[in-house]
Amino acid sequence: MEILQVVGSLVCTLRHPGLDQASLRLLKNAKGKIQVAVDPCGCQDGNWVFVVSGSAARYAWGDPKILTDLTVGGIIDFWDVDNGQLEAV
Amino acid sequence: MEILQVVGSLVCTLRHPGLDQASLRLLKNAKGKIQVAVDPCGCQDGNWVFVVSGSAARYAWGDPKILTDLTVGGIIDFWDVDNGQLEAV
Amino acid sequence: MEILQVVGSLVCTLRHPGLDQASLRLLKNAKGKIQVAVDPCGCQDGNWVFVVSGSAARYAWGDPKILTDLTVGGIIDFWDVDNGQLEAV
Amino acid sequence: MEILQVVGSLVCTLRHPGLDQASLRLLKNAKGKIQVAVDPCGCQDGNWVFVVSGSAARYAWGDPKILTDLTVGGIIDFWDVDNGQLEAV
Amino acid sequence: MEILQVVGSLVCTLRHPGLDQASLRLLKNAKGKIQVAVDPCGCQDGNWVFVVSGSAARYAWGDPKILTDLTVGGIIDFWDVDNGQLEAV
Repeated sequence: MEILQVVGSLVCTLRHPGLDQASLRLLKNAKGKIQVAVDPCGCQDGNWVFVVSGSAARYAWGDPKILTDLTVGGIIDFWDVDNGQLEAV
Repeated sequence: MEILQVVGSLVCTLRHPGLDQASLRLLKNAKGKIQVAVDPCGCQDGNWVFVVSGSAARYAWGDPKILTDLTVGGIIDFWDVDNGQLEAV
Repeated sequence: MEILQVVGSLVCTLRHPGLDQASLRLLKNAKGKIQVAVDPCGCQDGNWVFVVSGSAARYAWGDPKILTDLTVGGIIDFWDVDNGQLEAV
Repeated sequence: MEILQVVGSLVCTLRHPGLDQASLRLLKNAKGKIQVAVDPCGCQDGNWVFVVSGSAARYAWGDPKILTDLTVGGIIDFWDVDNGQLEAV
Repeated sequence: MEILQVVGSLVCTLRHPGLDQASLRLLKNAKGKIQVAVDPCGCQDGNWVFVVSGSAARYAWGDPKILTDLTVGGIIDFWDVDNGQLEAV
């Protein structure tokens, strides 16, 4: 799974019915690339999260027919590495 | 899911029967890379869309046996980020 | 799906039985990277094709147990973009 | 599968229930990119491991509904290459 | 599928039971990146092979529950391209 930061939301009226009312969050990686994920965890702007991709992303939403390839798996409290440079709230 | 812009269409007479009459759209990412997606949403040239990849792309077409790995999931109205630099129509 | 050009064939006697007699084509992307795909469409050297990857590639061969992760989905007649720089035969 | 080194752990209280109590490990590749994997092997910081991605990652946890796209597949004793430059403990 | 060269083996005593006694081979791509694949074809060091990734890699081992995302699909005899620069034994 990748570690990304929540930077905003996506407003998308004309969407595939398979996405239902899923909240679409904008996430940014270390290089600044923006991706879209569905969010079953209720993350907030600024949160660091890890995301699940591929077929697991569909299972993460409860209904494996949900049309997502990226789902927020959890909100990170903090991480513990030797050099400590990856500190998050 | 990735955010891409619709830049054109692909004319492809000799195609796999599993693709049926699916509309094939050309999409461009931020770096200019072109990809092909099937479009169940009726997007227009210039639209910003988000796309679903992998096995979810097949479910997005209604028939999971459709031969696609990239399907348009929705047309973006606008996005809401702090710095506002990703504004779309 | 990606757009690639057919540049040759792969001769491979000692192959996994799950690949059967599938024709293995060499395809090149815009950056010159070579990939191998099975070809149910009968493409020729020089053709521009689009390829289906992931689990959809297996369905594209008719038998989802075929051992491929990349299958030719169709031969491109031409594409229609605003700037017209992606013209193919 | 990729070869990665264990560099730490991820503390994540608010997580998707599908992840259960899985241990989340931080892994670094040769370029320094950090990824998160679940660990059924009991690896330690500093260990070199290989990881399984995609749908296989879910099977690796015993329950294919586990919400992971990256699972530690084994701890590397050593590898044997001609130039010997990839020596691990 | 990608074309890779076999450069060695991986010794891994503490491995996931789902990998069974599968032979783990080290493979190198054109840029020097090392990946690990299971090998049902009996390839030797120095061989050029093509590999199957994703869910197809699991089917390639005979048991789709095998924990691999990369499996050797065949040993390349030679390839036939216009410029001939990709010659292999």
